[in-house]
Amino acid sequence: MGLFTRDIKTMDDLFVHQLQDIYYAEKQLLKALPKMAGKATEPALKQGFEDHREQTEVHVQRLEEVFKMHGAEVKAVECPAIDGIIEEADEVAGEVDDKSVLDAALINAAQAVEHYEITRYGSLVAWAKQLGRNDCAAVLQKTLDEEKATDKKLTSLAESKINLRAAG
Amino acid sequence: MGLFTRDIKTMDDLFVHQLQDIYYAEKQLLKALPKMAGKATEPALKQGFEDHREQTEVHVQRLEEVFKMHGAEVKAVECPAIDGIIEEADEVAGEVDDKSVLDAALINAAQAVEHYEITRYGSLVAWAKQLGRNDCAAVLQKTLDEEKATDKKLTSLAESKINLRAAG
Repeated sequence: MGLFTRDIKTMDDLFVHQLQDIYYAEKQLLKALPKMAGKATEPALKQGFEDHREQTEVHVQRLEEVFKMHGAEVKAVECPAIDGIIEEADEVAGEVDDKSVLDAALINAAQAVEHYEITRYGSLVAWAKQLGRNDCAAVLQKTLDEEKATDKKLTSLAESKINLRAAG
Repeated sequence: MGLFTRDIKTMDDLFVHQLQDIYYAEKQLLKALPKMAGKATEPALKQGFEDHREQTEVHVQRLEEVFKMHGAEVKAVECPAIDGIIEEADEVAGEVDDKSVLDAALINAAQAVEHYEITRYGSLVAWAKQLGRNDCAAVLQKTLDEEKATDKKLTSLAESKINLRAAG
């Protein structure tokens, strides 16, 4: 989608643009998650990142399914938001000189990613319904539910273990 | 905070770094919100952005208070995440060629900002408590509660009005 071309004329265009944006984001995550797993020390966190990578593959497939259901080309558009979130995670991780504190920083970065996805999928579900595409909404809702569950899991891991060790 | 210098050695350092990061983010928002208000068509959304700008000023002051309470220098560090979120909002807004659809895109962008802030303040509150700084946690919690309330208000505005008009 070109800049300054005002290609988004309808709600349908906005929906497809947002699909392309989150498709790019999920694909960037597929690359970022193994690096985060590699940096994590706490086994439960490492495992969490690995599990989330597998889940992300499913999210990518679901997006491809929604593109097809909606008759749109499977395509990614650059998403500066996820690039910024991942860049910030890399920067902070590079500055941390303690393994337990690094785990706390990593889990915080992962939650920023989850919250970004929750917002985007939340809008996509709402827009799909508005456009009368309850079929697309149902597929996107599955991913939204999984992102919310991952965020909760990360919070509970942070509170029960990671922050405690980092501050200790 | 310099890159590759590994300046973050303790949980306390991570807490202060995160304060500097969200301080930068809030200040960027102070500049972005009037632009978003200027682009919005729906009066309730325009008003929402203006109200949130005023609220953001209070959030900035609270952060300055927390820096002081914690004996840390009031300082901002660049936050690529918020820069990316704002850049993406500008890009998408520039591509939309319909006022109602633009409102839907703007509200979606605003929610990405809220969710970013909710994650960061959520971690800050948890870390402050872990560090035995319940005084700082209480101040940060006030902002966290307000960000959550703003996000809910935006969702309800989107669902009750903006998305409906955009798809109509």
